[in-house]
Amino acid sequence: MTIKVIIAGPRGKMGREAIQMVENTAHFELVACLDRKNSGKTMDKNIPVYEDPDKCFSEVKADVLVDVTTPEVGFKHTEAALRHGIRPVVGTSGFTPEQISTLSELAASKNIGCIIAPNFAVGAVLLMQFAKMAAKYFPDVEIIEKHHDQKLDAPSGTAMKTLELIKETRTAKTQGHPNEKETLPGARGGESEGVRIHSVRLPGLVAHEEVLFGGNGQLLTIKHDSMNRQSFMEGIKLCIDEVMDMDKLVYGLENLLNLNN
Amino acid sequence: MTIKVIIAGPRGKMGREAIQMVENTAHFELVACLDRKNSGKTMDKNIPVYEDPDKCFSEVKADVLVDVTTPEVGFKHTEAALRHGIRPVVGTSGFTPEQISTLSELAASKNIGCIIAPNFAVGAVLLMQFAKMAAKYFPDVEIIEKHHDQKLDAPSGTAMKTLELIKETRTAKTQGHPNEKETLPGARGGESEGVRIHSVRLPGLVAHEEVLFGGNGQLLTIKHDSMNRQSFMEGIKLCIDEVMDMDKLVYGLENLLNLNN
Amino acid sequence: MTIKVIIAGPRGKMGREAIQMVENTAHFELVACLDRKNSGKTMDKNIPVYEDPDKCFSEVKADVLVDVTTPEVGFKHTEAALRHGIRPVVGTSGFTPEQISTLSELAASKNIGCIIAPNFAVGAVLLMQFAKMAAKYFPDVEIIEKHHDQKLDAPSGTAMKTLELIKETRTAKTQGHPNEKETLPGARGGESEGVRIHSVRLPGLVAHEEVLFGGNGQLLTIKHDSMNRQSFMEGIKLCIDEVMDMDKLVYGLENLLNLNN
Amino acid sequence: MTIKVIIAGPRGKMGREAIQMVENTAHFELVACLDRKNSGKTMDKNIPVYEDPDKCFSEVKADVLVDVTTPEVGFKHTEAALRHGIRPVVGTSGFTPEQISTLSELAASKNIGCIIAPNFAVGAVLLMQFAKMAAKYFPDVEIIEKHHDQKLDAPSGTAMKTLELIKETRTAKTQGHPNEKETLPGARGGESEGVRIHSVRLPGLVAHEEVLFGGNGQLLTIKHDSMNRQSFMEGIKLCIDEVMDMDKLVYGLENLLNLNN
Repeated sequence: MTIKVIIAGPRGKMGREAIQMVENTAHFELVACLDRKNSGKTMDKNIPVYEDPDKCFSEVKADVLVDVTTPEVGFKHTEAALRHGIRPVVGTSGFTPEQISTLSELAASKNIGCIIAPNFAVGAVLLMQFAKMAAKYFPDVEIIEKHHDQKLDAPSGTAMKTLELIKETRTAKTQGHPNEKETLPGARGGESEGVRIHSVRLPGLVAHEEVLFGGNGQLLTIKHDSMNRQSFMEGIKLCIDEVMDMDKLVYGLENLLNLNN
Repeated sequence: MTIKVIIAGPRGKMGREAIQMVENTAHFELVACLDRKNSGKTMDKNIPVYEDPDKCFSEVKADVLVDVTTPEVGFKHTEAALRHGIRPVVGTSGFTPEQISTLSELAASKNIGCIIAPNFAVGAVLLMQFAKMAAKYFPDVEIIEKHHDQKLDAPSGTAMKTLELIKETRTAKTQGHPNEKETLPGARGGESEGVRIHSVRLPGLVAHEEVLFGGNGQLLTIKHDSMNRQSFMEGIKLCIDEVMDMDKLVYGLENLLNLNN
Repeated sequence: MTIKVIIAGPRGKMGREAIQMVENTAHFELVACLDRKNSGKTMDKNIPVYEDPDKCFSEVKADVLVDVTTPEVGFKHTEAALRHGIRPVVGTSGFTPEQISTLSELAASKNIGCIIAPNFAVGAVLLMQFAKMAAKYFPDVEIIEKHHDQKLDAPSGTAMKTLELIKETRTAKTQGHPNEKETLPGARGGESEGVRIHSVRLPGLVAHEEVLFGGNGQLLTIKHDSMNRQSFMEGIKLCIDEVMDMDKLVYGLENLLNLNN
Repeated sequence: MTIKVIIAGPRGKMGREAIQMVENTAHFELVACLDRKNSGKTMDKNIPVYEDPDKCFSEVKADVLVDVTTPEVGFKHTEAALRHGIRPVVGTSGFTPEQISTLSELAASKNIGCIIAPNFAVGAVLLMQFAKMAAKYFPDVEIIEKHHDQKLDAPSGTAMKTLELIKETRTAKTQGHPNEKETLPGARGGESEGVRIHSVRLPGLVAHEEVLFGGNGQLLTIKHDSMNRQSFMEGIKLCIDEVMDMDKLVYGLENLLNLNN
């Protein structure tokens, strides 16, 4: 069965790669794009471009909306898609709890799937879930994240999100020797509830995260290396397939993955 | 509450460290040892030594038996302990399915816990479970295990066990380019159902295992470093506490760990 | 001072990036291209294209020729450039000893620099030199190289070159336990004079090489990760600057780098 | 030829292992020990113990003194050994420049070798030398050092020493984005002349140092793992052999190693 896909945000970096991914996947078909401008124009292969989501969703027969725009625009798109019975796959961490709740009720009333994913990289999502599981048994943990030297913020958002998940299962404790002394301030990294985070910035690096769990006589390390945006495309592909078999809204790829048994 | 512990195999490497661990844990108390010889003698602090398990278990009031002997002797010890209402914690991968079944029924009939663990290193057990979970989403996987250069067999038992678990969830596939060519035979490692295993042997190494999962644009790595036997002691400590709250036999630490929610 | 550069092979992957690099470097100026076709045409910014090297080198005033073509064509270009007093920077491992000797004499007679480099990635060249130095003190060594799963040959050319350099200083020895046994054939990797090489192939990987040296109680590891061709551009840039101050032919970046004091 | 060795500091951790190493090396012979007490007693195999170095060196015929005491005592031992024509191998970073100068003149006047080594681990010394070489070509560098969680000071002494060596060849520069922002203070590590150092402290770790050099499209990493004191014993063994062929004082193992050609 071919899944008919509309892409919102086709001119951004993510959007351009999403178009390629859809075109390179045998059982996917790109049927329209939603854009901030260019309404009425067509893209390669006569794919129509719309600015108005309601017009788009009523004129074009589609199964799935892939939205890689901004949270503001994305919410309107997602709400409209659900109303028209089109299943949304949305990449954002920017929706408010109220917005998610609204969309969740809408998806349930329509009995269709909807996926909202702050992170489409399956490997990064697995790293975070494994870290959360391991922290229950290894309360001594440090995070090293490494990025290219043009990154502005330290630590990275993914490292902070990992830290949040770790705290859910880890028994709080101060790590290291109580009389530990930094002869170079900052050497022991950033700290939150006793967990240390270290941010490395160098040219040549892309996006790498490592969680180290230490116990007597052993070390458990979980590491994710992201080389380029292709990792996100794999996640979007997975979501397009999964959303077709769902009948409600799911927030976060971790709730889509079946990690048991 | 103090947990009274009997140790079987007190003169082996594992046994000696287990004695130290029990003595260094505030709520554990060593009450006797089971040995192949030295019956009637006492160890430090007047701990009595027994050769006959039934005599030991009827004369000494104990909660838990920690058995780090051989599968043959260990089975007799475990069976006798269960009969006397003492909860066994046994480190072995050598019991037959029939033996496990017998012990399982005995534990159930007595309504007490019993733990049989092929591997007491919690970190290694987590690595294996995480690898099994990840293989469902990343069918492209290779294993690198590194050990000291006096190790005889390659790959290591843990790597082979990891491979078995990966196969349970991974969709079988041939990895690498179909026309791939080894100009140095063996360069691509050992192979089983398309998964490659590489064994490194060097002085200075202890026991290290790494599972690499590759996907488009990303890499997920799970790694365990074992530095010394202390990692096993942490696992035994965990088991002694857990077995007190159990009412049946559990095989494998992975079935003791709570990795959900 | 601005260095005037001619690029041979402008339409290949390396050539296109070399053009960008020259244009992005303030003190470099692209003055012409040598190509297999398009003679007489011009590129962006009116850069003339030539097919005949002698015509090119006599009509265009240039300081350096960067050649990223094939060994056959590259030799003719290099020889012609030297005759015209233009300093060649050539990326190839395909010249014969006789060809190198011919070019070396020509450079000496003209009293100008010429660099022939099998590998322009400074990091990879440093890895090889450090490995050669370390092997003198750590004869127990294994190599792990990791590449994307579309690579055809295993081990990689760089790993084999590293092995050659290691053999120059390492005392030959058989590594591992003499009674070591492979239960999975190939697990211990490819072997040459006792050194083991392991080739990992996974999607998501780019080009990575790691040399591990083991000694009693310690491990020394030298690792190079190549993320994209930009690493080669940095090497070409270095060579363009260096070749201006040289008065003879140098083969291999390692002979350009000053690793002493 | 058998080399006759005196060990000073036989009851410390290093001393005890040095005795074992000497006894396990076929061409070494332990002939006496220098200790703070026990003068006149003998150790295993009738090895005499002395408190007075002059008495020891005049009564016992020896080739080499291995001193693993403190800087204060060690200086007296070394000076006395040189006067008696015995070649010292001393493990300390605590001698003053004046003391080293005095010992150097004494060694030269006696025409015999003397080695003073702040670090006997050959792998750590190589890491530092390679880092110094690489920094010339990769000015973007960060250091990650990892130790057990009972270590008091951060960064480690070896990391600080590595930093010093890097500064000798690296062109000073501020690394990372100029507008970089730490949302968790300390995340970017300790800083010195733009180089960042990160100190990880976890149970299960021993002593590990990693120097990362980043360049466009590539990463060069040099790493040393120290598992136990055996690495120092290999260095002492090397020094005992080397000092016999030397006719002057050498400070630092790096000046003993031949890293060229």
